Amino acid sequence: MTSKSVVLTGITTTGTPHLGNYVGAIRPAIEASRRHDVAPFYFLADYHALIKCQDPERVRQSTLEIAATWLALGLDTENAVFYRQSDIPEITELAWILSCVTAKGLMNRAHAYKAAVQANEESGEADPDKGVTMGLFNYPILMAADILLFNAQQVPVGKDQIQHLEMARDIAGRFNHLYGEHFVLPEAVVSEETATLAGLDGRKMSKSYDNTIPIFLPDKQLRKLILKIKTNSLEPGVPKDPDTCTLYGIYRAFASKEETAAIRRRYQEGIAWGEMKNILFEYLNNHFRAARERYYALLESPEKIEAVLQEGAARAREHSVPFMKKIRSSVGIRPLHRP
Amino acid sequence: MTSKSVVLTGITTTGTPHLGNYVGAIRPAIEASRRHDVAPFYFLADYHALIKCQDPERVRQSTLEIAATWLALGLDTENAVFYRQSDIPEITELAWILSCVTAKGLMNRAHAYKAAVQANEESGEADPDKGVTMGLFNYPILMAADILLFNAQQVPVGKDQIQHLEMARDIAGRFNHLYGEHFVLPEAVVSEETATLAGLDGRKMSKSYDNTIPIFLPDKQLRKLILKIKTNSLEPGVPKDPDTCTLYGIYRAFASKEETAAIRRRYQEGIAWGEMKNILFEYLNNHFRAARERYYALLESPEKIEAVLQEGAARAREHSVPFMKKIRSSVGIRPLHRP
Repeated sequence: MTSKSVVLTGITTTGTPHLGNYVGAIRPAIEASRRHDVAPFYFLADYHALIKCQDPERVRQSTLEIAATWLALGLDTENAVFYRQSDIPEITELAWILSCVTAKGLMNRAHAYKAAVQANEESGEADPDKGVTMGLFNYPILMAADILLFNAQQVPVGKDQIQHLEMARDIAGRFNHLYGEHFVLPEAVVSEETATLAGLDGRKMSKSYDNTIPIFLPDKQLRKLILKIKTNSLEPGVPKDPDTCTLYGIYRAFASKEETAAIRRRYQEGIAWGEMKNILFEYLNNHFRAARERYYALLESPEKIEAVLQEGAARAREHSVPFMKKIRSSVGIRPLHRP
Repeated sequence: MTSKSVVLTGITTTGTPHLGNYVGAIRPAIEASRRHDVAPFYFLADYHALIKCQDPERVRQSTLEIAATWLALGLDTENAVFYRQSDIPEITELAWILSCVTAKGLMNRAHAYKAAVQANEESGEADPDKGVTMGLFNYPILMAADILLFNAQQVPVGKDQIQHLEMARDIAGRFNHLYGEHFVLPEAVVSEETATLAGLDGRKMSKSYDNTIPIFLPDKQLRKLILKIKTNSLEPGVPKDPDTCTLYGIYRAFASKEETAAIRRRYQEGIAWGEMKNILFEYLNNHFRAARERYYALLESPEKIEAVLQEGAARAREHSVPFMKKIRSSVGIRPLHRP
């Protein structure tokens, strides 16, 4: 194991990556994958995916698409350890051991669980736990295991995940108190403001609004989606406000400062929506052309992606196997001839 | 995997086996280990032990003593698969997958959890979950994984475990409904009346009453404990009631019908307590002499026990590894090049 501090990021495998994911999460993570001052650990969180998704084909397809996306976009797998959660059996072993030192009261207070209970209460449901699975309820423990197994010091998270990090610290602290100082207490690294994009309908681009633009699409489909982006009805020649415009928001997320300034001027001059949509299409189409070729080539050769993930799992297990031996031993589970 | 029906028994590793365990559980299980009409699976439930026991040395020592006890008493490890739960990583993997199809409401209704809540409420505790860990709350899911991983058809249980078996069936049914018929629904085999012994103080022999007689003790210690067994104060020569006598109860659990009948006559004739204690000591001491020699020899060679457990784990994993591949695949977790 490296002595560099571990930065760990999980990617839930339940959808097709879209431009909003790219700008908000994938691009910064891929940049960070090249940081040689830390040890980046990135994993496909397929066991987490099962909490939300009981469609096997979607889990499978999403794992494939997400892995291909990250690789096509230039994830540095020489530096970063890139693996699939389910290839590391030590994760669920540790989750069980951690569950034995985790107070149920702690899980009762988890936001995601409380939100589900509240939704049931508000809809007049008699059973507050209706529709809540033990996967959802146990989620913070599995996440703690993901993090603590690799003694990650830094975990980049959105604001909604800060509480889970605090729970991982609580659980680690309790274990250390009972069994000795085995775990590093992880720290949440909260990005000041995560970049978000608007989607087709002007709301935040999100799978749950069904308003997304996937990162990789054949030309025609990309053009079609961009033509569907909602604008106001101002005529060509009438000055337009870039700051409330979805097209501009997306453009700015990719273009240089100079390019962005030039487009702002075109808005003031009253650019036609049709032309702006065309500019945006061309820009994105060019921007992702090389990566898209790599992406479709990878989808054609899933065995190559699998090989990368297997190599990542082997690197991850170089740490997790001996570490779990130590953890098991600390709770009294060890070969009988080694007291 | 055999086509015989699997009979599965877990042994929690948190104490030193005593005569009550022997008569109630170990002896019938060891006899059953020789049944060639079924496939017996016996495991040391060390992950379950962590729920109750946070003393690593006790978990370790208990695992050693229990494994040595079962082997010394003649467990047929050629026929039965004898393994340690923690050597089968597929168990906790399956537990996670099952948790994603298990309603939290089901766990809310588990007797062990409800008993803990009730105890809190009765003691005026404000937090009903005080002292409840997620290990306790998740216990029925881990037990379901123990059973379902080996598609056990029959699980011998005490009455207090019938509910857990029903939960395992519920969880299996839910999984089968969502993902196809992968699991056999296990059946509880409830022994009509489990033999129980009284302990030193006349109450049921149990670790929790601190009134046990360990199975294997050096002569002097065994004699000392038997001398401590509580009797009434009837003088020698006065007829005595065997049926309310702890000494007689223990004797009868080991002796032949003829021997037992002969002792009943001695009670009617007014046998002295000192003499009866001596008879019981001699009887037990002889009864366990050969097994005790094997037991202490095994404790001296823990590497031999470890080798037996490793062989058992290898046999168990011949089934669990390919079976979990199938289960993972059914939920969408599979190598990317095998769609």
